[in-house]
Amino acid sequence: MRAEIIAVGSELLLGDIVNTNASWLSEQLAVIGVDVFHHVSVGDNPARIQKVIEQAIERADVLIFTGGLGPTQDDLTVETIADYFKVPLISDPESERMIEAFFIARGMTHAKSNLKQALRPADAQVIANPIGTAPGICWDVSEKTGRETFILTFPGVPRELYQMWGYGKRFIQEKQQERGEQHQMLVSSSLHFFGIGESTLGEELADLMESSNPTVAPYVGRSEVRVRLAAKANTEADALALIQPIKSEIAQRLKPFYFGEGDEASLEESVAVLLLEQGLRVSTAESCTGGLVSSRLTDVSGSSEYTTLNVVTYSNEEKMKVLGVSVETLEQHGAVSPQTAQEMAEGIRRLSGADIGLSMTGIAGPTGGNEEKPVGLVYMGLSGPINSEGQDTRKTIVKKIMVNRNYKRMDIKYWFSQYALHYLRHYLLGTLRADEDSCELKPSASPVSNN
Amino acid sequence: MRAEIIAVGSELLLGDIVNTNASWLSEQLAVIGVDVFHHVSVGDNPARIQKVIEQAIERADVLIFTGGLGPTQDDLTVETIADYFKVPLISDPESERMIEAFFIARGMTHAKSNLKQALRPADAQVIANPIGTAPGICWDVSEKTGRETFILTFPGVPRELYQMWGYGKRFIQEKQQERGEQHQMLVSSSLHFFGIGESTLGEELADLMESSNPTVAPYVGRSEVRVRLAAKANTEADALALIQPIKSEIAQRLKPFYFGEGDEASLEESVAVLLLEQGLRVSTAESCTGGLVSSRLTDVSGSSEYTTLNVVTYSNEEKMKVLGVSVETLEQHGAVSPQTAQEMAEGIRRLSGADIGLSMTGIAGPTGGNEEKPVGLVYMGLSGPINSEGQDTRKTIVKKIMVNRNYKRMDIKYWFSQYALHYLRHYLLGTLRADEDSCELKPSASPVSNN
Repeated sequence: MRAEIIAVGSELLLGDIVNTNASWLSEQLAVIGVDVFHHVSVGDNPARIQKVIEQAIERADVLIFTGGLGPTQDDLTVETIADYFKVPLISDPESERMIEAFFIARGMTHAKSNLKQALRPADAQVIANPIGTAPGICWDVSEKTGRETFILTFPGVPRELYQMWGYGKRFIQEKQQERGEQHQMLVSSSLHFFGIGESTLGEELADLMESSNPTVAPYVGRSEVRVRLAAKANTEADALALIQPIKSEIAQRLKPFYFGEGDEASLEESVAVLLLEQGLRVSTAESCTGGLVSSRLTDVSGSSEYTTLNVVTYSNEEKMKVLGVSVETLEQHGAVSPQTAQEMAEGIRRLSGADIGLSMTGIAGPTGGNEEKPVGLVYMGLSGPINSEGQDTRKTIVKKIMVNRNYKRMDIKYWFSQYALHYLRHYLLGTLRADEDSCELKPSASPVSNN
Repeated sequence: MRAEIIAVGSELLLGDIVNTNASWLSEQLAVIGVDVFHHVSVGDNPARIQKVIEQAIERADVLIFTGGLGPTQDDLTVETIADYFKVPLISDPESERMIEAFFIARGMTHAKSNLKQALRPADAQVIANPIGTAPGICWDVSEKTGRETFILTFPGVPRELYQMWGYGKRFIQEKQQERGEQHQMLVSSSLHFFGIGESTLGEELADLMESSNPTVAPYVGRSEVRVRLAAKANTEADALALIQPIKSEIAQRLKPFYFGEGDEASLEESVAVLLLEQGLRVSTAESCTGGLVSSRLTDVSGSSEYTTLNVVTYSNEEKMKVLGVSVETLEQHGAVSPQTAQEMAEGIRRLSGADIGLSMTGIAGPTGGNEEKPVGLVYMGLSGPINSEGQDTRKTIVKKIMVNRNYKRMDIKYWFSQYALHYLRHYLLGTLRADEDSCELKPSASPVSNN
């Protein structure tokens, strides 16, 4: 079965909003084995909408409309579709009742224009809208087109579409069954990686990327790389069974970089799991990241179990006063130096009594950089009871990172925070190593008194 | 002149990526007076791309393609366009040279497939790509279609498109001039508001929203409301002159809520300007926001001028130890209380010596709430030398806020941070008032010793 997604609304063509509904629906349709060959956006203009309907009927079986279901005069989707098929509209009593209830629940009286939203072709089914006043329709117009044609309409507001999609999906699946269509489900999964570039990852997985079921496709996310696995099969279980061995193989092959699966996966989430498992607490001492690492650590519900005190010391004075960084270190090596990162990490651990101290000091730009210490440079310190060999030596590991200096300040901050969480994760996994670009420092002058 | 924007790429139809290019280009085209009537997305399939070209030529003068310019076999845009017009491709020597230079600069050798990217129809102009290997083309095919038809191609990577658009824009503007088209420019501007809902704002501006030039349209942004002003005129200056008085009127009418104009406007930016103007420093003591307010304050370049020490005290113990919140306050009123917010704000001001102490203590959820103190509740304390009447009384103002408890944790944190910055802004403007829902507290037991 083939679908075409038609977005109606002049605001799309003016560039006021981005059509996220088209990609969301495409993903949903792929899951139930419906191919999407075209997305079209058209303005609130009956003649142009009708022409789009005519073209879509020629090349698709399912026409999915989003937008143009509002109460105002320029919301024309249902009327125009009905006009195209020369079918009158009737008012749906249940929709009328729901629209009235919507306003009563909010202590308001509805406008006359809202009742326009209850209109539907007589033989169309209504898709109730649980959170808004615009119901959708599912309509089988096959008798009118002389081929199999199904029309679905949804509001343009994404969260309303998401709530209403289930009904539309079942309608399409029933039609697939009626047609006896042996449709295949597409099940997909995204794996998340950090610390490896897209091209290197592509080389590592080159052999797997030749697979056609599941397909294996790397792509770039926000300061991370992802691999999309997508399998087609008759049942979801069969598709998952195709994905599973490849997923395990990839996770194994790229173990140091793989941190999670699915839309919700994040480095903070994976770090949270490890901290809770190991019963450890972390405290951060941030300079250039300004609190972003702390904020991300506390984006996870239940974070008070593993982080209780974090500080942002932007000035040298505060680094000395609050964290006990020595004046000599700052004078000899500067605020952006491995030595300062070390003393910050040890200082926050001492101050908080946490198991792990994590520090960042660097240059987020766009100003403040120079040739020796450019924008994009950051040192991160990890101080904990356990060193990279698993022994309690109270060493602090400092990592040096260079991020592309041409990124925007906020993007540089975000990259820094990704590295901080990445190293914290490796610390917790026991795989954090001092490498060429970093240094594993001796205990500093200020002893870590806690723990 | 009418344009149609055609995105090529199967990844769009699988829902892997959102077509942000279409809305970005639409905005750019509106500015130079080109109408956009359709967006179309189509897969990497020559027959379907050719059919889309055929339909677009019938209804548009300018066809703008994005995507499908890559080096691999499934990148077909230029080849398919040339095939449609039955025109052979030649290799552009300058493009070849730039592609080779691109790889040499990176210490790599280019693949043969990259040279495919240098191909163009003989009479097309090349749009150089300064940051990638895929050049675009501008091509006048009017002689072939028997009407005025211009074809432009751009890479699908947004940042490459943005860099290359200027050339395409000039090409279109030259064609407009050749046609002697009296095109009108559309100039738009977005005003940003916080602390007022979309419907209330709509009521306040109801009379202005009847204007047709400029149009005045409120819409919802991320935890804020925006008003889009868009004016058409023959010149940019004329359009701006139409916008200016309405903008001033709106800014005046909604003064307490209006904080900035344009894509880059943010509460942190507007707060930064005020702090720098007044030469004041702020320090934050965060609980439920976990460092987000600190991170946002430091998203602004030069923030070290106005914030040097911020802390996140998640536990009661740290609130006592670091900020000097009293055990009696925590026992009697709890961590989420106006009293704790007050002592946190005064404590961070004392610790940092900053002019202003700003605190947040609340419940970001999804767990931790109860009937008396539900998820979404937050108290914010503002401690400074100046009270709401402009006198130095060292009072602390505490505000109580309830955010929709059904939002996700991260959204609740963001709303909290919006309120914190909003109140800080009003503090700096001298318009922060204790209101029914909040309290203006007497100086607490711990005197503010600094300042």
